[in-house]
Formats: sequence, structure tokens, C-alpha cells
Amino acid sequence: MYKVDLNSDLGESFGRYTLGMDEKIIPLISSANVACGFHASDPVVMEETVSRAKAAGISIGAHPGYPDLMGFGRRNMDVTSGEAKAYTLYQIGALDGMCRANGVKLSHVKPHGALYNMASGDYELARGICQAVREFDKDLIVLALSGGELARAAKDMGLRTALEVFADRAYEEDGSLVNRRKAGAMIHDEELAIKRVVRMIKEKKVTSVTGRDIDIQADSVCVHGDGEKALAFVEKIRKALLEEGIGISPLGEIV
Amino acid sequence: MYKVDLNSDLGESFGRYTLGMDEKIIPLISSANVACGFHASDPVVMEETVSRAKAAGISIGAHPGYPDLMGFGRRNMDVTSGEAKAYTLYQIGALDGMCRANGVKLSHVKPHGALYNMASGDYELARGICQAVREFDKDLIVLALSGGELARAAKDMGLRTALEVFADRAYEEDGSLVNRRKAGAMIHDEELAIKRVVRMIKEKKVTSVTGRDIDIQADSVCVHGDGEKALAFVEKIRKALLEEGIGISPLGEIV
Amino acid sequence: MYKVDLNSDLGESFGRYTLGMDEKIIPLISSANVACGFHASDPVVMEETVSRAKAAGISIGAHPGYPDLMGFGRRNMDVTSGEAKAYTLYQIGALDGMCRANGVKLSHVKPHGALYNMASGDYELARGICQAVREFDKDLIVLALSGGELARAAKDMGLRTALEVFADRAYEEDGSLVNRRKAGAMIHDEELAIKRVVRMIKEKKVTSVTGRDIDIQADSVCVHGDGEKALAFVEKIRKALLEEGIGISPLGEIV
Amino acid sequence: MYKVDLNSDLGESFGRYTLGMDEKIIPLISSANVACGFHASDPVVMEETVSRAKAAGISIGAHPGYPDLMGFGRRNMDVTSGEAKAYTLYQIGALDGMCRANGVKLSHVKPHGALYNMASGDYELARGICQAVREFDKDLIVLALSGGELARAAKDMGLRTALEVFADRAYEEDGSLVNRRKAGAMIHDEELAIKRVVRMIKEKKVTSVTGRDIDIQADSVCVHGDGEKALAFVEKIRKALLEEGIGISPLGEIV
Repeated sequence: MYKVDLNSDLGESFGRYTLGMDEKIIPLISSANVACGFHASDPVVMEETVSRAKAAGISIGAHPGYPDLMGFGRRNMDVTSGEAKAYTLYQIGALDGMCRANGVKLSHVKPHGALYNMASGDYELARGICQAVREFDKDLIVLALSGGELARAAKDMGLRTALEVFADRAYEEDGSLVNRRKAGAMIHDEELAIKRVVRMIKEKKVTSVTGRDIDIQADSVCVHGDGEKALAFVEKIRKALLEEGIGISPLGEIV
Repeated sequence: MYKVDLNSDLGESFGRYTLGMDEKIIPLISSANVACGFHASDPVVMEETVSRAKAAGISIGAHPGYPDLMGFGRRNMDVTSGEAKAYTLYQIGALDGMCRANGVKLSHVKPHGALYNMASGDYELARGICQAVREFDKDLIVLALSGGELARAAKDMGLRTALEVFADRAYEEDGSLVNRRKAGAMIHDEELAIKRVVRMIKEKKVTSVTGRDIDIQADSVCVHGDGEKALAFVEKIRKALLEEGIGISPLGEIV
Repeated sequence: MYKVDLNSDLGESFGRYTLGMDEKIIPLISSANVACGFHASDPVVMEETVSRAKAAGISIGAHPGYPDLMGFGRRNMDVTSGEAKAYTLYQIGALDGMCRANGVKLSHVKPHGALYNMASGDYELARGICQAVREFDKDLIVLALSGGELARAAKDMGLRTALEVFADRAYEEDGSLVNRRKAGAMIHDEELAIKRVVRMIKEKKVTSVTGRDIDIQADSVCVHGDGEKALAFVEKIRKALLEEGIGISPLGEIV
Repeated sequence: MYKVDLNSDLGESFGRYTLGMDEKIIPLISSANVACGFHASDPVVMEETVSRAKAAGISIGAHPGYPDLMGFGRRNMDVTSGEAKAYTLYQIGALDGMCRANGVKLSHVKPHGALYNMASGDYELARGICQAVREFDKDLIVLALSGGELARAAKDMGLRTALEVFADRAYEEDGSLVNRRKAGAMIHDEELAIKRVVRMIKEKKVTSVTGRDIDIQADSVCVHGDGEKALAFVEKIRKALLEEGIGISPLGEIV
């Protein structure tokens, strides 16, 4: 039987600032990537988010980012591999503290924004992140872009790795995401997006932006809860997956 | 046989900024309170500090503070007990991540600066801190001011508690520290300071600022490494303690 | 003819985080207090806010706060008078830079949240803030709580001072606000709130929480734009003031 | 008669953290670049630094950097030109506030660290910085790398521009600095370094790393005060310049 994880970024509020519709998306997903206070979130928000995710029975992962709250961790920063390791270790530890206090186990680590993007294309940076994971707990799953350097580094270091795909993004022939600035980077047709995801899961294939079929592995689909439209799409994809006989399971049950 | 712990705050550097003489004081103490990134320190510094402390075989404790880097965590902030709990949990977790990565166990928690001072006089705030400790790991030791509310809250919650004394500070009759703004708050005579500490350990007594002998428990003596003069005093007190037949042992061996 | 200013806090968004409905409240008010990056806002938001306020022809004031983004500047912090001076000067300067770039003059300074509250009750702290104002530009107006220490310090230092009242708050006999934790602190009846404001402006009187009439000066009324309900109230009070023959004018035309 | 400015970065301390030997280098230089709170410094430090620089009669410039205190503004960050403009405007304004309070005029703007380096090679980014300068005060001098894009953008926008050279750095044939990672990037021989500077000022020539003489304009020499060795070199170069008949004058008297 087919199965896949649906993951989403949660706990991105900060102090007086609210972001995302966590309560609405939690019932629709199977894994949460919880921001850890560098690019978003604060300790009070993290505690609440872990508590909510636990109550819903979904997997909880750390979502470490660059120390750039003003830029929401979306701006490339030239940090060394050693700095990336220390920043990741710090953020994993902080979130794990919330998990321990709530009596729940941390399941995975997915870097955020620019750290995710840069690590997907930079093996050395990716190794820094993976070293933090391995030294902290070698049973943690690294949730990485299908076909990227982070996935490669995680595998090379013997870590459990889950590969993530995007419903609304086009792929190059080498399996990387088409740059958002290029034409055709986004899949705007929701029906098509869902068909592509179903095929990725069942056939392990996707049609690249050049029209060629390529191999792809889809352990998890990244979805968003930052607006009513995004939520409606999550409901749609969720329904379609179930109708196609694809079970939705937390990351830990996939890899 | 008598024994006592010598504790000092370490890992207070931040990015390009260096503070303290960690390498020089580490050989003289038995426990390190490591800053956790809120009032001082950063992930790279924390990793190095844990590694150094581990190499020296001293106990490693978390030293959580207020989120006030500009004020070095020394300014009173009106945070709620719930916020204090979340901030403490976050910082303990972050440092524990560094400890796990280094294969060493976190031994204790000592709040920093204004958080320490406020918790010493505010039972509700102290409870918030202790809840974080208990939920994270009920075997952690709370290192608290002898006679203060933090010690009381920790004991009430069934936590292991170590009591800390200061060589250079005068005490009120109720066992609290004489406010620094009052005359006689500081003990400037080093010989006298050392004699007082020895007596606190051996007789469990100290002469209060009013001239009356009071009961006191000295599990640990707080010392400083932020200058040559401070270091020289640590060497002096260390030598005196050993000559008096008082062993210097990590916190975990005291309580 | 009677006249009064309506002031509101603007520009409180930060990076990816949006707060307030600035575009909707701007047409309803005559003065904006713009956050300056310590408790809220960032340089990009400040630039946009100044540009919008200028386009609407309303007065622009600096809204300096404590360096506590996580607490939105609402938590008391034990800063010295000298620190408060430097923090205020920094924030006024930063916002004034945005004003100069937009070819518009900064009109006033109103401290935010805990800084406002603490300065309203602490003459020394208030003096620090006022020194920053005087040294920066002695023609700036200090917008202060009617009856508080900030107003007193500003007057003592020869600064132009505007006094602010709150429609939804009760007053003690000495003219200070009833603490929010006390019963009767808030005026929930909108009609009553508006009647009180009209009377404060026309008769310079308000009924205190004890039932006695006291003197009060109302140069400006503080209103909020952080929700649909708040906006509806601003429209209501605005309409009522105009019907009562009270003109709504920017601060600079009031004092 | 020949003349040149000696500029140095000052006011880089932060809260409890001290950096640099400002009091020792101030008597040796003619212009100070004062950190503005993003990559270093805080309002209290800025106020003191401006006061000291004013007392010494040296030119005061703003030294804006990336919002990266943890990395001391030395890490490349992918900010847009618009963000760079807003960040620069904010920081110039904040420092100008300190200058106004001290009754002294701000003379120049020199970006810090990674912002300086990136702007030296990126015309669009440089334009963002220069727009902030022009909108704030078109009489401010932009202090830029001789031969870089920041200098070009400043000139294109009609701003007063001063060109800066480095005594201890080698130059490529196109006038850019040899990358620090390349062999021969640094001039370690102090005598040679000084001879090169004298020649840059008197002959407007320097020998590039390839051995060819190239044109160069030296309005200001960048020197450092972050250690005894650095200070000794500043004294040496200062003495050599005076002996060569080269006057040392504040930036404003050079351009």
C-alpha cells in the first residue's frame, strides 16, 4: 500500500506577532516542522506548538534557520559549515527541550528557508547541518529536498533521510527545483499539481520542465497553512491522496 | 571530610566579542555555569565552552538569563512565571544539545543576573524556572542562593538543590544578601572573606551585617574569572580551602 | 472653537510579520506615532509608514520603546535614566532620518508601552527621555499622559507638551489612570466613553472612578487600529467629535 | 601641499562587551567611522563615541552594517537594494541624532564589513546605499574603496566621494583589492606598506600584484586600533606621512 507524509511549517508566530493558521492545518497534516527562535518563533510559541502537535498525534521536527528574524530566515547568509552546525545543534536542542517537557519524541530536522535552499546546493554546508543531527541523536530523520545535497550528505553520514517534494513546483531534469525566477517554475493548475504528486508517489516519476520523465522519491509533500487558499489546497490534496489509496502517515512511519 | 564546589560563569563571549578568561579559570573550579545565548554567548561559543569544560572534567550547568543581550541580563524585566519557564526550558535544551553532542551530561541549572536575583526574592517566578527544570530532567540540580525563594521553590518541587554562597558579600540576619547599594554590602578584605567561607563550610555559620551569627549552608562558592585580580583571588581561596582540609568537588558529588 | 488631535500607533509590522491596519486608520486620525525598531518595526516598515503618513498629511511622531521585540516593549525593564536617554535619542534619530528622506518634519515623541507607563510614574526616567528630545530638537512636542511625570518633566525642561487622554480608561482622583487590574479600570460603554471625551475637551473635566469631578487637559485622544472593532470605534468617536463642533487637528496645531 | 585623511572604525563595543582601543587611536586619526547598532555598538556606546570624537576634533561618519550582530556584519547577506537603502537610512539617522545632541555635524558614511565589500562589487546594492545618503543629506561624503562600485554609484548620483586605500593590501591591475584568500593579498612588510601609501598620495600610483603600476587615488587611509600592534603601526605611518610633508586632515578638508 502506498503512503506519504504531509509536512508543514508551524510555530512561526513571535511575541505579539501572529503568523500562520496552525490550529487549522494541524488536523490536515502528519508532520510539523517547528520554528526554533532564530528566523521565527519564541520559547512561549514553541512550547504551545509542541503541545498542540502532540495532542494531534503528528510528528514533530525541528525547523532551524539562519539568525535573521528581520528577514524571516529567507535571505542567504554566508555562514561557515561550522557555524551552521552550531546553529542547528542549538535550535534542535532548544526544541527538543520543549518535546521532553511535553513527553514526546522529536522525530526529524528540516532546515528552513535560505538554510534549506543553500544546503540543498552546498555539500559542505549540508554536512555541517548533518553533523549537528548525528551528534545530537543519530535516529533523527533529515527531511531534505529530493535530489539535493542535503539528502546526499545525510545519506553519506548514515542518517535516516526522508525526501520531500513540492506539489506546486516544476523540476529540472536533474531533479532539482526550477528556480522561481524562471518561467514555468510554478505549477498553478491545482488539478495538475495533485496528479503530479500522485504519480510521484505511485510511479516514482515526474515530468520535468523540459518534458522528460525523471525518477523522483516522494516520502513527504510540503504544504502550507498561511492562508485560506493554501488550507483549501491542503484539504484537496489530502482528499485526492486518500481517494487514490495513498495513506497519510507521519514521517517516522515512512522511512 | 568537608567538601565544597567552586562555580563560575563561563562562555560569556559573543561573536566577535570576547569576555572572561575561561581557559584560566577552568583549572581552578569544579563547576561551570554556561551562558545560553539570551544574555550572552552564541552557539559557537557554547559548543567550545562545553568541550573545554568536559576536557577539564568539571560539572556543566545551564546559565539561563533574560533575553537582554544589550543589558547582559542584568536588568530586571517584568516577565511572567510562564515566560520564565519557557525561556528557561529553551535555554536548558539548547545547552543540553551541546552536552549531548559532546557526550557529557548536564548537571545543573543556575539562573543568571537579574533572573537569579528576581527569582531569589519571588516565589512565583522561581516556580516557573523550577517547572522548566523538572519537566526537562528531574535529576538536574538547581543551584540557588542560600536562603532565597528559588531554593525554596526547588525544594518544594522535589528538585535536587545546591546552595550557593558568596565570599565577598555580607548577609542580612534572614540569610539574604545585603543590597549592593547599602554600606557594608561588600567584603573587601580578602583574608576575612576566605575566613568567612571556611567557617560557612565547617560550622555552617556566618556573621550577619548586624553582627549576629546566622545559619547558612554552603554547597558551592561562586567565583569569578573576569580579570587577573579575580583569578588571583580564586587561586587564593582554592589554596586556603585545601589547606583547611576542605575538598573541592563538582556539584554532583556535593548534593 | 474646540479642537483635539487623534493619535494612533502605526508602523508596528516587522519583517514578515504584519500588525495593525495602518491603511485603514490613517484616514481617521491626525497624528501617527511610528514605532522605531526597538519594540516593533524595521527600517523598511518605517520608511513605508512615514511615506503613507506624509501622503495623508498627518503629523508624524517617534514612538520609542524598550529594546524588547519579544515582549513588544510592554514589559517593564529596569533601565537607567541615561540608558533611556540614549535609546530615545537613537530611535528619534532613526525615524527622523526617514522623515528627512521623505521631506517631512518630525512633530512629536511619544514613548511606547512600558517605557510610557514607567516614565508616567518616574520623574528621573522621564527626564532621560526629555533630555533626548531637547538635545535632538527642542521644538519637538512631547506627547504625554495627562497628569503624569513625563508631562511634568517635559514642562520643567521647557519642552512643548501635549497631553493625552484615553476614551476607554477610568481616572483616579489625582488624574492618573486606574490600574488595569482594578475593577472599573475600563470604560466598556462606547456611548459613555465618547461623552466623557467630549466633556474632557469642552469642560476640561472628567468624573474619576470615585465619582468626583477632576480637572483634565485633553490635547489628544489615543485611538487604536488593531482590529475591525477598534476601527469602528474610531469612526464613531470621530463622527461624534465633529458633530459636537470639535475640530480634529494635528498635534502641531493644538499646542 | 599633500594631505590625506586617516580613518578608523570606532564605537564597536556593545553593552558589557568592550572592543577596540578607541581612546588610544582617536589622537592618531582624523576621521572616525562610528558603528550604528546593527553589526556592533549600542545607543550608549554611540553617544560616548560621538562625544569623544567631537572632543578630539576629528570628523564623524556613520558606519552602517548588516543586521548581524552575531557575525559582526562580516558575513555576506542577500539583502535587496531597497533593504540596504532603508537599513542605511536608519543607521545614518540614528547616529546623526547623537551628533545633533552633541552639536557636531555628521561628515561622511562608510559601510561596514560585508556591506562595504558587497557594495564595492555590486552597483545596484551600492545605489541603494547612496540613495539613503542623498535623501538624508546630499552634502555627506561617501567614503568608498578606490576603484569600486560604491565609489562609481556615489559619483553617478552626484555625491561627494572620498576614496580609501589600504596600506596592508595588494591591488589587482583593475584597482580592486586582491582577495584575501589569494597569495600576496597582504603586505606584511611595514616599511614597504608605508612607502606604498606615500607613493599613492604623492604620485597617485601603486604597483599592482602583477607588477604593473596603476593609477590610484588616496583621499583616506584606513587604519585599525584593535590591538597594540595595530596602534604602533598607526603611529609609524602617521610619523612617516608627516616626515614626507603630507598633512593629515579630516575628510571634509580633503574632498
